[in-house]
Amino acid sequence: METPAPASPARRTVTNGQRTGRPYDHSSDALILANTLDLLVERGYERVTLDEVAARTGKAKTTLYRRWATKEDLVIAAIRAAGRPPEADRLPDLGSLRANLLAVVDSPWLGGPQRRLSIFAGLASATQVSERLADVIRSEVTEPYVEVYRRLLHRSIDDGETTAHFAASTDLLAEVIPAMSTHRLSTSREPVQRDFFVSVVDDVVLAALGMTTR
Amino acid sequence: METPAPASPARRTVTNGQRTGRPYDHSSDALILANTLDLLVERGYERVTLDEVAARTGKAKTTLYRRWATKEDLVIAAIRAAGRPPEADRLPDLGSLRANLLAVVDSPWLGGPQRRLSIFAGLASATQVSERLADVIRSEVTEPYVEVYRRLLHRSIDDGETTAHFAASTDLLAEVIPAMSTHRLSTSREPVQRDFFVSVVDDVVLAALGMTTR
Repeated sequence: METPAPASPARRTVTNGQRTGRPYDHSSDALILANTLDLLVERGYERVTLDEVAARTGKAKTTLYRRWATKEDLVIAAIRAAGRPPEADRLPDLGSLRANLLAVVDSPWLGGPQRRLSIFAGLASATQVSERLADVIRSEVTEPYVEVYRRLLHRSIDDGETTAHFAASTDLLAEVIPAMSTHRLSTSREPVQRDFFVSVVDDVVLAALGMTTR
Repeated sequence: METPAPASPARRTVTNGQRTGRPYDHSSDALILANTLDLLVERGYERVTLDEVAARTGKAKTTLYRRWATKEDLVIAAIRAAGRPPEADRLPDLGSLRANLLAVVDSPWLGGPQRRLSIFAGLASATQVSERLADVIRSEVTEPYVEVYRRLLHRSIDDGETTAHFAASTDLLAEVIPAMSTHRLSTSREPVQRDFFVSVVDDVVLAALGMTTR
Protein backbone atom coordinates (compact mmCIF):
# COMPACT_ATOMS: atom_id res chain seq x y z
CA MET A 1 0.00 0.00 0.00
CA GLU A 2 1.40 3.37 -0.91
CA THR A 3 1.59 6.24 1.51
CA PRO A 4 -0.49 9.16 0.19
CA ALA A 5 1.73 12.07 -0.77
CA PRO A 6 1.43 14.99 1.67
CA ALA A 7 0.13 18.27 0.31
CA SER A 8 3.60 19.73 0.71
CA PRO A 9 4.63 23.30 -0.05
CA ALA A 10 7.26 21.89 -2.39
CA ARG A 11 4.61 20.07 -4.40
CA ARG A 12 2.58 23.24 -4.66
CA THR A 13 5.63 25.12 -5.86
CA VAL A 14 6.13 22.62 -8.64
CA THR A 15 2.51 22.69 -9.73
CA ASN A 16 2.30 26.47 -9.57
CA GLY A 17 5.58 26.80 -11.38
CA GLN A 18 4.36 24.66 -14.22
CA ARG A 19 0.91 26.26 -14.38
CA THR A 20 2.16 29.80 -14.44
CA GLY A 21 4.92 28.79 -16.83
CA ARG A 22 7.64 30.05 -14.49
CA PRO A 23 10.88 28.88 -16.09
CA TYR A 24 13.00 26.34 -14.26
CA ASP A 25 16.07 27.94 -12.72
CA HIS A 26 19.02 26.24 -14.45
CA SER A 27 21.70 28.11 -12.52
CA SER A 28 21.82 25.36 -9.85
CA ASP A 29 22.27 22.53 -12.34
CA ALA A 30 26.06 22.58 -12.32
CA LEU A 31 26.15 22.50 -8.51
CA ILE A 32 23.65 19.64 -8.31
CA LEU A 33 25.40 17.59 -11.01
CA ALA A 34 28.86 18.08 -9.48
CA ASN A 35 27.53 16.94 -6.09
CA THR A 36 25.88 13.92 -7.71
CA LEU A 37 29.23 12.89 -9.21
CA ASP A 38 30.96 13.39 -5.83
CA LEU A 39 28.39 11.18 -4.11
CA LEU A 40 28.78 8.53 -6.81
CA VAL A 41 32.54 8.49 -6.14
CA GLU A 42 32.09 8.29 -2.37
CA ARG A 43 29.31 5.70 -2.25
CA GLY A 44 28.88 3.90 -5.53
CA TYR A 45 25.70 4.21 -7.59
CA GLU A 46 23.40 2.14 -5.38
CA ARG A 47 23.90 4.32 -2.35
CA VAL A 48 23.46 7.67 -4.07
CA THR A 49 20.12 9.15 -2.95
CA LEU A 50 18.30 12.21 -4.21
CA ASP A 51 17.66 13.10 -0.57
CA GLU A 52 21.38 13.50 0.03
CA VAL A 53 21.99 15.39 -3.21
CA ALA A 54 19.17 17.73 -2.13
CA ALA A 55 20.63 18.11 1.37
CA ARG A 56 24.15 18.82 0.10
CA THR A 57 23.02 21.43 -2.37
CA GLY A 58 20.33 23.01 -0.21
CA LYS A 59 17.64 22.24 -2.80
CA ALA A 60 14.19 20.73 -2.27
CA LYS A 61 13.98 17.11 -3.39
CA THR A 62 10.95 18.03 -5.51
CA THR A 63 13.09 20.58 -7.36
CA LEU A 64 15.47 17.78 -8.29
CA TYR A 65 12.64 15.47 -9.34
CA ARG A 66 11.10 18.22 -11.45
CA ARG A 67 14.29 18.36 -13.49
CA TRP A 68 15.37 14.67 -13.38
CA ALA A 69 12.57 12.15 -13.01
CA THR A 70 14.73 9.35 -11.61
CA LYS A 71 18.09 8.79 -9.96
CA GLU A 72 19.27 7.23 -13.19
CA ASP A 73 18.36 10.41 -15.12
CA LEU A 74 20.22 12.54 -12.58
CA VAL A 75 23.35 10.36 -12.71
CA ILE A 76 23.27 10.32 -16.52
CA ALA A 77 23.02 14.13 -16.54
CA ALA A 78 25.96 14.31 -14.11
CA ILE A 79 28.05 12.08 -16.40
CA ARG A 80 27.14 14.15 -19.48
CA ALA A 81 27.92 17.38 -17.64
CA ALA A 82 31.41 16.13 -16.74
CA GLY A 83 32.39 16.53 -20.37
CA ARG A 84 34.94 14.77 -22.51
CA PRO A 85 38.72 14.68 -22.14
CA PRO A 86 40.17 17.98 -23.43
CA GLU A 87 42.86 15.89 -25.20
CA ALA A 88 40.10 14.57 -27.51
CA ASP A 89 39.84 18.06 -29.04
CA ARG A 90 43.53 18.82 -28.90
CA LEU A 91 45.76 15.75 -28.98
CA PRO A 92 48.99 16.35 -26.99
CA ASP A 93 51.98 16.89 -29.27
CA LEU A 94 55.04 16.91 -27.06
CA GLY A 95 57.51 15.25 -29.39
CA SER A 96 57.38 11.61 -28.23
CA LEU A 97 54.76 8.94 -27.67
CA ARG A 98 55.95 8.61 -24.07
CA ALA A 99 55.52 12.33 -23.32
CA ASN A 100 52.11 12.34 -25.00
CA LEU A 101 50.84 9.29 -23.09
CA LEU A 102 52.01 10.84 -19.81
CA ALA A 103 50.27 14.10 -20.70
CA VAL A 104 46.98 12.18 -20.87
CA VAL A 105 47.82 10.38 -17.62
CA ASP A 106 48.34 13.81 -16.02
CA SER A 107 45.26 15.35 -17.63
CA PRO A 108 43.12 17.62 -15.42
CA TRP A 109 40.02 15.92 -16.90
CA LEU A 110 37.51 14.92 -14.19
CA GLY A 111 39.61 16.58 -11.51
CA GLY A 112 42.98 15.00 -12.30
CA PRO A 113 44.37 11.43 -12.05
CA GLN A 114 43.24 10.54 -8.51
CA ARG A 115 39.68 11.81 -8.73
CA ARG A 116 39.29 10.55 -12.31
CA LEU A 117 40.24 7.06 -11.16
CA SER A 118 37.71 7.20 -8.32
CA ILE A 119 35.04 8.31 -10.77
CA PHE A 120 35.91 5.40 -13.08
CA ALA A 121 35.52 3.01 -10.13
CA GLY A 122 32.16 4.54 -9.17
CA LEU A 123 30.98 4.31 -12.76
CA ALA A 124 32.14 0.69 -13.10
CA SER A 125 29.64 -0.26 -10.39
CA ALA A 126 26.93 1.73 -12.21
CA THR A 127 27.41 -0.17 -15.49
CA GLN A 128 25.79 -3.17 -13.80
CA VAL A 129 22.61 -1.21 -13.04
CA SER A 130 21.05 -0.82 -16.48
CA GLU A 131 22.00 -1.05 -20.15
CA ARG A 132 20.99 2.60 -20.61
CA LEU A 133 23.36 3.77 -17.90
CA ALA A 134 26.12 1.44 -19.15
CA ASP A 135 25.73 2.87 -22.69
CA VAL A 136 26.05 6.46 -21.48
CA ILE A 137 29.15 5.61 -19.42
CA ARG A 138 30.73 3.92 -22.43
CA SER A 139 29.90 6.62 -24.95
CA GLU A 140 30.59 9.63 -22.69
CA VAL A 141 33.51 8.42 -20.56
CA THR A 142 35.26 5.15 -21.35
CA GLU A 143 35.30 5.26 -25.14
CA PRO A 144 36.38 8.91 -25.53
CA TYR A 145 39.18 8.29 -23.01
CA VAL A 146 40.46 5.08 -24.64
CA GLU A 147 40.09 6.81 -28.03
CA VAL A 148 42.63 9.48 -27.01
CA TYR A 149 45.24 6.77 -26.28
CA ARG A 150 44.34 4.97 -29.52
CA ARG A 151 44.83 8.12 -31.60
CA LEU A 152 48.19 8.80 -29.95
CA LEU A 153 49.33 5.25 -30.80
CA HIS A 154 48.11 5.55 -34.40
CA ARG A 155 49.76 8.92 -34.87
CA SER A 156 53.05 7.54 -33.52
CA ILE A 157 52.89 4.84 -36.22
CA ASP A 158 51.98 7.41 -38.90
CA ASP A 159 54.93 9.54 -37.80
CA GLY A 160 57.29 6.57 -38.05
CA GLU A 161 58.19 6.69 -34.34
CA THR A 162 56.50 3.31 -33.78
CA THR A 163 56.91 0.55 -36.39
CA ALA A 164 53.81 -0.24 -38.46
CA HIS A 165 54.27 -3.86 -37.36
CA PHE A 166 52.33 -2.98 -34.19
CA ALA A 167 49.31 -1.43 -35.94
CA ALA A 168 47.22 -4.53 -35.18
CA SER A 169 47.67 -4.20 -31.42
CA THR A 170 46.97 -0.47 -30.96
CA ASP A 171 43.29 -1.04 -30.08
CA LEU A 172 44.32 -3.35 -27.30
CA LEU A 173 47.25 -1.23 -26.09
CA ALA A 174 44.96 1.82 -25.93
CA GLU A 175 43.08 0.06 -23.11
CA VAL A 176 46.15 -0.77 -21.04
CA ILE A 177 46.46 2.46 -19.01
CA PRO A 178 42.76 2.75 -18.03
CA ALA A 179 42.54 -1.03 -17.38
CA MET A 180 45.67 -1.28 -15.24
CA SER A 181 44.88 1.80 -13.17
CA THR A 182 41.26 0.85 -12.37
CA HIS A 183 42.39 -2.71 -11.56
CA ARG A 184 45.12 -1.43 -9.26
CA LEU A 185 42.67 0.93 -7.53
CA SER A 186 40.20 -1.87 -6.79
CA THR A 187 42.80 -4.44 -5.72
CA SER A 188 45.29 -2.39 -3.73
CA ARG A 189 45.08 -0.98 -0.23
CA GLU A 190 47.21 1.98 -1.29
CA PRO A 191 46.32 4.98 -3.44
CA VAL A 192 47.50 4.69 -7.05
CA GLN A 193 50.58 6.89 -7.38
CA ARG A 194 52.00 8.54 -10.48
CA ASP A 195 54.96 6.08 -10.39
CA PHE A 196 52.49 3.33 -11.14
CA PHE A 197 51.20 5.11 -14.26
CA VAL A 198 54.77 5.76 -15.41
CA SER A 199 55.62 2.05 -15.02
CA VAL A 200 52.53 1.07 -16.98
CA VAL A 201 53.55 3.43 -19.80
CA ASP A 202 57.20 2.26 -19.82
CA ASP A 203 57.06 -1.43 -18.84
CA VAL A 204 53.80 -2.40 -20.49
CA VAL A 205 52.72 -0.07 -23.32
CA LEU A 206 56.10 1.09 -24.68
CA ALA A 207 57.71 -2.29 -23.90
CA ALA A 208 54.98 -4.07 -25.91
CA LEU A 209 55.79 -1.71 -28.80
CA GLY A 210 59.48 -2.64 -28.63
CA MET A 211 60.28 0.86 -27.32
CA THR A 212 61.89 -0.17 -24.06
CA THR A 213 63.20 2.63 -21.90
CA ARG A 214 65.07 0.45 -19.38
CA MET B 1 7.63 2.93 12.53
CA GLU B 2 8.66 -0.71 12.34
CA THR B 3 6.26 -3.48 11.51
CA PRO B 4 6.10 -5.90 14.42
CA ALA B 5 7.64 -9.25 13.51
CA PRO B 6 5.03 -11.98 13.05
CA ALA B 7 5.23 -14.96 15.36
CA SER B 8 6.42 -17.06 12.44
CA PRO B 9 7.11 -20.78 12.49
CA ALA B 10 10.63 -20.03 11.27
CA ARG B 11 11.30 -17.83 14.31
CA ARG B 12 10.08 -20.53 16.64
CA THR B 13 12.30 -23.10 14.95
CA VAL B 14 15.37 -21.01 15.57
CA THR B 15 14.57 -20.40 19.22
CA ASN B 16 13.73 -24.03 19.83
CA GLY B 17 16.79 -25.13 17.93
CA GLN B 18 19.04 -23.01 20.11
CA ARG B 19 17.33 -23.88 23.38
CA THR B 20 17.44 -27.61 22.83
CA GLY B 21 20.97 -27.33 21.43
CA ARG B 22 19.96 -29.01 18.18
CA PRO B 23 23.03 -28.73 15.96
CA TYR B 24 22.85 -26.50 12.91
CA ASP B 25 22.49 -28.51 9.72
CA HIS B 26 25.57 -27.65 7.65
CA SER B 27 24.60 -29.76 4.65
CA SER B 28 22.83 -26.80 3.02
CA ASP B 29 25.77 -24.42 3.35
CA ALA B 30 27.30 -25.21 -0.04
CA LEU B 31 23.96 -24.68 -1.79
CA ILE B 32 23.32 -21.37 0.00
CA LEU B 33 26.83 -20.05 -0.63
CA ALA B 34 26.79 -21.01 -4.33
CA ASN B 35 23.44 -19.23 -4.76
CA THR B 36 24.80 -16.18 -2.95
CA LEU B 37 27.69 -16.00 -5.42
CA ASP B 38 25.28 -16.41 -8.36
CA LEU B 39 23.14 -13.54 -7.08
CA LEU B 40 26.21 -11.38 -6.59
CA VAL B 41 27.14 -11.98 -10.24
CA GLU B 42 23.63 -11.22 -11.51
CA ARG B 43 22.90 -8.15 -9.41
CA GLY B 44 26.00 -6.72 -7.81
CA TYR B 45 26.47 -6.66 -4.04
CA GLU B 46 23.98 -3.93 -3.19
CA ARG B 47 21.06 -5.77 -4.69
CA VAL B 48 21.77 -9.16 -3.13
CA THR B 49 19.11 -9.82 -0.47
CA LEU B 50 18.90 -12.60 2.07
CA ASP B 51 15.22 -12.90 1.15
CA GLU B 52 16.13 -13.93 -2.36
CA VAL B 53 18.90 -16.30 -1.27
CA ALA B 54 16.33 -17.89 1.07
CA ALA B 55 13.73 -18.11 -1.71
CA ARG B 56 16.17 -19.64 -4.20
CA THR B 57 17.41 -22.28 -1.81
CA GLY B 58 14.07 -23.03 -0.16
CA LYS B 59 15.43 -22.06 3.26
CA ALA B 60 13.84 -19.85 5.90
CA LYS B 61 15.45 -16.43 6.13
CA THR B 62 15.91 -16.99 9.87
CA THR B 63 17.95 -20.12 9.11
CA LEU B 64 20.30 -17.97 7.06
CA TYR B 65 20.53 -15.29 9.75
CA ARG B 66 21.23 -17.92 12.37
CA ARG B 67 24.35 -18.94 10.44
CA TRP B 68 25.42 -15.56 8.97
CA ALA B 69 24.44 -12.52 11.00
CA THR B 70 24.62 -10.03 8.14
CA LYS B 71 24.61 -9.94 4.34
CA GLU B 72 28.30 -9.05 4.51
CA ASP B 73 29.03 -12.22 6.55
CA LEU B 74 27.11 -14.32 4.04
CA VAL B 75 28.92 -12.84 1.05
CA ILE B 76 32.30 -13.25 2.76
CA ALA B 77 31.49 -16.91 3.47
CA ALA B 78 30.48 -17.35 -0.20
CA ILE B 79 33.80 -15.86 -1.35
CA ARG B 80 35.78 -18.07 1.03
CA ALA B 81 33.84 -21.16 -0.05
CA ALA B 82 34.68 -20.48 -3.70
CA GLY B 83 38.25 -21.51 -2.98
CA ARG B 84 41.54 -20.55 -4.56
CA PRO B 85 42.76 -21.14 -8.11
CA PRO B 86 43.87 -24.80 -8.44
CA GLU B 87 46.95 -23.49 -10.34
CA ALA B 88 48.15 -21.96 -7.06
CA ASP B 89 48.74 -25.49 -5.74
CA ARG B 90 49.98 -26.92 -9.00
CA LEU B 91 51.52 -24.36 -11.34
CA PRO B 92 50.93 -25.31 -15.01
CA ASP B 93 54.08 -26.70 -16.65
CA LEU B 94 53.34 -27.05 -20.34
CA GLY B 95 56.74 -26.17 -21.73
CA SER B 96 56.34 -22.48 -22.57
CA LEU B 97 55.29 -19.31 -20.78
CA ARG B 98 52.61 -18.76 -23.42
CA ALA B 99 51.06 -22.22 -22.92
CA ASN B 100 51.19 -21.79 -19.14
CA LEU B 101 49.53 -18.33 -19.21
CA LEU B 102 46.78 -19.66 -21.47
CA ALA B 103 46.26 -22.63 -19.13
CA VAL B 104 45.46 -20.14 -16.35
CA VAL B 105 43.22 -18.14 -18.73
CA ASP B 106 41.34 -21.39 -19.45
CA SER B 107 41.25 -22.51 -15.81
CA PRO B 108 37.97 -24.03 -14.57
CA TRP B 109 38.36 -21.95 -11.37
CA LEU B 110 35.11 -20.18 -10.41
CA GLY B 111 33.26 -21.88 -13.25
CA GLY B 112 35.62 -21.06 -16.12
CA PRO B 113 36.66 -17.83 -17.91
CA GLN B 114 33.20 -16.31 -18.53
CA ARG B 115 31.72 -16.89 -15.10
CA ARG B 116 35.00 -16.02 -13.36
CA LEU B 117 35.03 -12.67 -15.12
CA SER B 118 31.43 -11.98 -14.07
CA ILE B 119 32.34 -12.84 -10.49
CA PHE B 120 35.32 -10.46 -10.62
CA ALA B 121 32.97 -7.69 -11.83
CA GLY B 122 30.45 -8.43 -9.06
CA LEU B 123 33.24 -8.40 -6.49
CA ALA B 124 34.71 -5.15 -7.81
CA SER B 125 31.44 -3.41 -6.87
CA ALA B 126 31.59 -5.05 -3.43
CA THR B 127 35.09 -3.71 -2.68
CA GLN B 128 33.49 -0.25 -2.31
CA VAL B 129 31.15 -1.45 0.45
CA SER B 130 33.52 -1.96 3.36
CA GLU B 131 37.22 -2.38 4.08
CA ARG B 132 36.52 -5.79 5.62
CA LEU B 133 34.83 -7.05 2.46
CA ALA B 134 37.52 -5.47 0.27
CA ASP B 135 40.25 -7.22 2.31
CA VAL B 136 38.61 -10.63 1.94
CA ILE B 137 38.18 -10.13 -1.82
CA ARG B 138 41.84 -9.16 -2.15
CA SER B 139 43.25 -11.95 0.01
CA GLU B 140 40.94 -14.73 -1.22
CA VAL B 141 40.44 -13.86 -4.89
CA THR B 142 42.47 -11.10 -6.51
CA GLU B 143 45.86 -11.67 -4.91
CA PRO B 144 45.96 -15.48 -5.27
CA TYR B 145 44.95 -15.12 -8.93
CA VAL B 146 47.54 -12.43 -9.77
CA GLU B 147 50.09 -14.45 -7.77
CA VAL B 148 49.71 -17.41 -10.15
CA TYR B 149 50.62 -15.20 -13.12
CA ARG B 150 53.48 -13.65 -11.15
CA ARG B 151 54.97 -17.07 -10.29
CA LEU B 152 54.72 -18.19 -13.94
CA LEU B 153 56.61 -15.06 -15.03
CA HIS B 154 59.28 -15.55 -12.36
CA ARG B 155 59.72 -19.22 -13.22
CA SER B 156 60.10 -18.32 -16.90
CA ILE B 157 62.96 -15.99 -15.94
CA ASP B 158 64.52 -18.66 -13.67
CA ASP B 159 64.30 -21.16 -16.53
CA GLY B 160 66.04 -18.74 -18.89
CA GLU B 161 63.07 -18.57 -21.28
CA THR B 162 62.53 -14.89 -20.41
CA THR B 163 65.56 -12.61 -20.00
CA ALA B 164 66.32 -11.49 -16.45
CA HIS B 165 66.22 -7.92 -17.77
CA PHE B 166 62.43 -8.02 -17.27
CA ALA B 167 62.48 -9.16 -13.64
CA ALA B 168 61.55 -5.64 -12.47
CA SER B 169 58.29 -5.60 -14.44
CA THR B 170 56.89 -9.04 -13.56
CA ASP B 171 54.73 -7.69 -10.72
CA LEU B 172 53.10 -5.28 -13.11
CA LEU B 173 52.79 -7.76 -15.99
CA ALA B 174 51.14 -10.28 -13.64
CA GLU B 175 48.20 -7.87 -13.38
CA VAL B 176 47.74 -7.39 -17.12
CA ILE B 177 45.44 -10.34 -17.88
CA PRO B 178 43.02 -9.78 -14.95
CA ALA B 179 43.07 -5.99 -15.49
CA MET B 180 42.46 -6.08 -19.24
CA SER B 181 39.69 -8.68 -19.06
CA THR B 182 37.71 -6.97 -16.28
CA HIS B 183 38.12 -3.62 -18.06
CA ARG B 184 36.92 -5.11 -21.34
CA LEU B 185 33.94 -6.72 -19.61
CA SER B 186 32.80 -3.43 -18.06
CA THR B 187 33.39 -1.30 -21.16
CA SER B 188 32.22 -3.52 -24.00
CA ARG B 189 28.74 -4.42 -25.14
CA GLU B 190 29.97 -7.85 -26.24
CA PRO B 191 30.97 -10.87 -24.13
CA VAL B 192 34.73 -11.24 -23.68
CA GLN B 193 35.84 -14.02 -26.03
CA ARG B 194 38.87 -16.29 -25.76
CA ASP B 195 40.45 -14.45 -28.75
CA PHE B 196 40.66 -11.39 -26.55
CA PHE B 197 42.61 -13.25 -23.84
CA VAL B 198 44.95 -14.72 -26.46
CA SER B 199 45.64 -11.22 -27.84
CA VAL B 200 46.34 -9.91 -24.35
CA VAL B 201 48.83 -12.75 -23.77
CA ASP B 202 50.54 -12.29 -27.16
CA ASP B 203 50.31 -8.58 -27.92
CA VAL B 204 50.66 -7.21 -24.41
CA VAL B 205 52.32 -9.62 -21.93
CA LEU B 206 54.67 -11.55 -24.24
CA ALA B 207 55.27 -8.48 -26.42
CA ALA B 208 56.29 -6.46 -23.34
CA LEU B 209 58.77 -9.27 -22.53
CA GLY B 210 60.27 -9.05 -26.00
CA MET B 211 58.76 -12.45 -26.87
CA THR B 212 56.66 -11.35 -29.84
CA THR B 213 54.73 -14.05 -31.62
CA ARG B 214 53.63 -11.96 -34.62
